[in-house]
Amino acid sequence: MNRGLLIVLSGPSGVGKGTVCSALRGKQPELIYSVSATTRPPREGERDGVNYFFKSREQFQDMIRNDALLEYAEYVGNFYGTPRDFVEKTLDEGKDIILEIEVQGALKVKEKFPEGVFIFLLPPSLGELKQRIVGRGTESQATIEHRLSVAVEEMNLLYHYDYAVVNDDVDSACARIGAIMTAEHCKRERFLHELFQELNDLTPAQNARER
Amino acid sequence: MNRGLLIVLSGPSGVGKGTVCSALRGKQPELIYSVSATTRPPREGERDGVNYFFKSREQFQDMIRNDALLEYAEYVGNFYGTPRDFVEKTLDEGKDIILEIEVQGALKVKEKFPEGVFIFLLPPSLGELKQRIVGRGTESQATIEHRLSVAVEEMNLLYHYDYAVVNDDVDSACARIGAIMTAEHCKRERFLHELFQELNDLTPAQNARER
Repeated sequence: MNRGLLIVLSGPSGVGKGTVCSALRGKQPELIYSVSATTRPPREGERDGVNYFFKSREQFQDMIRNDALLEYAEYVGNFYGTPRDFVEKTLDEGKDIILEIEVQGALKVKEKFPEGVFIFLLPPSLGELKQRIVGRGTESQATIEHRLSVAVEEMNLLYHYDYAVVNDDVDSACARIGAIMTAEHCKRERFLHELFQELNDLTPAQNARER
Repeated sequence: MNRGLLIVLSGPSGVGKGTVCSALRGKQPELIYSVSATTRPPREGERDGVNYFFKSREQFQDMIRNDALLEYAEYVGNFYGTPRDFVEKTLDEGKDIILEIEVQGALKVKEKFPEGVFIFLLPPSLGELKQRIVGRGTESQATIEHRLSVAVEEMNLLYHYDYAVVNDDVDSACARIGAIMTAEHCKRERFLHELFQELNDLTPAQNARER
């Protein structure tokens, strides 16, 4: 059986990662959602292992020490992170798992899990970049240069990703992400692996031993 | 505008390349089909530039000398080849083009056009490879070893391709090829290229000159 795929969905803040991810899970119910670990106390109705893996600060620091997290960060006094074992277990079961995460976290995941499929969600304004940078022709040279440097920064982040999906429309974005998943499942490496395994099980020597 | 994609659909003989390619063109009417050049005389109803580019032997040999073919081969006294300019012109227009070709030809195309998307169509028996090799347990060691070497040869060809698509069902195979095309259009290189171009057009120096 082939391993599942780790899909990392990221992009600049405000681009609609959460909306696209929810829609995608609705369309692909077999897709597993990566559950984060956190030291934040559970809110009413939140269930351990479903919404989050709830951990004490000590437990979380143990996970950091044991390299049990693909990435982690601290926000307003609480730790949040992606447990590696949940991801690995899901992939070993042949299931695909999606991780929705901000850009810095995604880059950390890539260091530990380069075989993930890294998708950068772009705002629909990509095609309007030019207009945004030039503005209405009333901006100073300094403003244009600042905008240019921001655009270059955004572009450089995209460089770390495998794919870019423009979020012009949630359904279209989901369709493109679904196509990327299908295509990744067709990557020849996955077939070669399977064939090698099958052929390895069938070497004449072993075949002879079995008789 | 982004360039189109060259999709090279290949695979072992008898796998159903032609059937899948025809079905795909029916489903994706905007997909352009690569037209071959040949020295074979036109048959009734065949049109130059539609079915083939009909060439004299001398013209064809000029094309070979001028590196105007992505690949060529001789069958029963006639030359057949893939004109490079038709492919390049289509790609420059931002359109995708598909080339259906046998395995040796595809490898030659890859030498001249490595940025193509190379898809290997597999027979539905991939999963039954094991059973086919072992047979019914009545075969000699020599037969099993021969089958094994054929399987390894097939596998090694797959190694040169980007994707493998199992032709278990024509519609499913077409859907997977369509997904591969969508995913390839989402490759971040294509977005980076566009962004670089846009940003290049917008350097402050140039912007200042325009005022």
